[in-house]
Amino acid sequence: MRREFDLINDFKKKYSLKSVGDDCAILPKNAEYDMLVTADMLVEDIDFRLKWTKPEYLGHKTLAVSLSDIAAMGGKSLWAMLSIAVPEALWNSSFLDEFYEGWHNLAGKFGVDLVGGDISRSPDKLVIDSIVGGEVLKDQAVLRSTAKPGDLIYVSGSLGGAAAGLSLLEDQKVKEVSELILRQLRPEPRNKLALELMVHKIPTAMIDLSDGLSSDLAHICSASAVGAKVLCMQIPIDVNLEINGFDTKKSLDLALNGGEDLELLFTADRSDADKLARFDVTMIGEITDIAGKIELIDDDATSILEPKGFRHF
Amino acid sequence: MRREFDLINDFKKKYSLKSVGDDCAILPKNAEYDMLVTADMLVEDIDFRLKWTKPEYLGHKTLAVSLSDIAAMGGKSLWAMLSIAVPEALWNSSFLDEFYEGWHNLAGKFGVDLVGGDISRSPDKLVIDSIVGGEVLKDQAVLRSTAKPGDLIYVSGSLGGAAAGLSLLEDQKVKEVSELILRQLRPEPRNKLALELMVHKIPTAMIDLSDGLSSDLAHICSASAVGAKVLCMQIPIDVNLEINGFDTKKSLDLALNGGEDLELLFTADRSDADKLARFDVTMIGEITDIAGKIELIDDDATSILEPKGFRHF
Repeated sequence: MRREFDLINDFKKKYSLKSVGDDCAILPKNAEYDMLVTADMLVEDIDFRLKWTKPEYLGHKTLAVSLSDIAAMGGKSLWAMLSIAVPEALWNSSFLDEFYEGWHNLAGKFGVDLVGGDISRSPDKLVIDSIVGGEVLKDQAVLRSTAKPGDLIYVSGSLGGAAAGLSLLEDQKVKEVSELILRQLRPEPRNKLALELMVHKIPTAMIDLSDGLSSDLAHICSASAVGAKVLCMQIPIDVNLEINGFDTKKSLDLALNGGEDLELLFTADRSDADKLARFDVTMIGEITDIAGKIELIDDDATSILEPKGFRHF
Repeated sequence: MRREFDLINDFKKKYSLKSVGDDCAILPKNAEYDMLVTADMLVEDIDFRLKWTKPEYLGHKTLAVSLSDIAAMGGKSLWAMLSIAVPEALWNSSFLDEFYEGWHNLAGKFGVDLVGGDISRSPDKLVIDSIVGGEVLKDQAVLRSTAKPGDLIYVSGSLGGAAAGLSLLEDQKVKEVSELILRQLRPEPRNKLALELMVHKIPTAMIDLSDGLSSDLAHICSASAVGAKVLCMQIPIDVNLEINGFDTKKSLDLALNGGEDLELLFTADRSDADKLARFDVTMIGEITDIAGKIELIDDDATSILEPKGFRHF
């Protein structure tokens, strides 16, 4: 079966689609800024389950995943559109009002305006397409393709929480709304951190952790034609995993391969290591010149880190 | 039940969404241009049926409906994104390749580049969100809200063809691909005409005929706080309706209330009537100062033209 990244690469080649393949498209805006645009499609029973979430949480998450794409390019979010296909039963409930309340509360924090979108009916499943536009100083957008050998690799915050929350929901172990559940259902994008990093011109390449560390680092390495060494002991696993009874092996698996944390994964020149000490980020490895080879170094043992993050196909 | 236009108006009021409600959102771009963005969601078995169309036609139509929104604001289309939720069976076929071939062929005619989007899996139905961005000279975007009493009302091309094509498909009367079928499945947006009208600064208000003349004229009248008189005999009914056996009454109904023709409906100052003689447009009536009252004048009889075009809810 053709995988989704293969399809995108096939189309990119066949039709010379130069702008496709990063977290956002970069488009000319004016003398000072480039425009960024991103779209994220969320499908009921594939990307979320209504029985596990609340309409406000879903509204929040819908916007959060797109804000996070703008953050990953170092941009500032400005406006958004929402296209929604709604089953009749949901239409005839307070769902959309609550959904939009959650969306709007997050939008307010980042000064994002809803400027349009579309409504359609859906035969059975709710489908949402979230579109966010933003801007970044001209030619300053941070790409996936510009990591260079010797750069250090950083992640923001902690990893594995969103996937652990999903695991709890899948196992029906949820008694109350906990931090892990909220990391899954109501993730906080790192847009403020991204803009602070940009002030100091730190990231040499960046992506947000939506598919999972192993896959998203592979995206950077593939786009940049580099490899990486990841220090297993350095990975900042969410402390709530241990508290909730996830064992060491499972916790590492979730931190490496679980998606949707919406943390930032970026590379930086070694000379910026001191500056980065005051940010909520952790150095987890370094970029190498062996294109496509991503090694996971655990004490004395070294293994290949295969991309095992989420994919639709 | 709350109708879709009511929901949008409720949200506009509650959250002060000033930019929502026209064919496109208008956003600041640079000193010379404003940016236009539009999104259109197409849902299988609601907005299209796979058994009636071809993947190339669907790709074409997906882009055409969004290009038409840019045309309706007097803008030039520049870039596009596609978000697609795909059922597994379609993924494992040549569907997406053929779909994109149709999309790309139309995009090429208007110089539109695909710059991004998203792919998700869908449990059963294909769902597509089409996003197109464009530009228009600063403060020159043509709104729905700027028609004034005394303006003449024009439509481009001919009406009712797309709805008649749908009617043939629904009645399973299709023996071969005819002009009416193509108007439904592979509509041609009027972007070139719109740009020519803009060169002469003719349209005082404009919308594209996607819901149907009766509904789309009501949108202009509502937004502009005006009324209208429509001359029944002036309506340019697609000649293929008579050829295909639609009687006079049914043909008029399809021309008034059928959607998806993607023709332009616009108003113009009377002083531009002579200029408009050389365009493929027909004068069908005039704007009045009786807000909300749309009259249909047929020989001596006058009736109220109620909006009966397509709506999802």
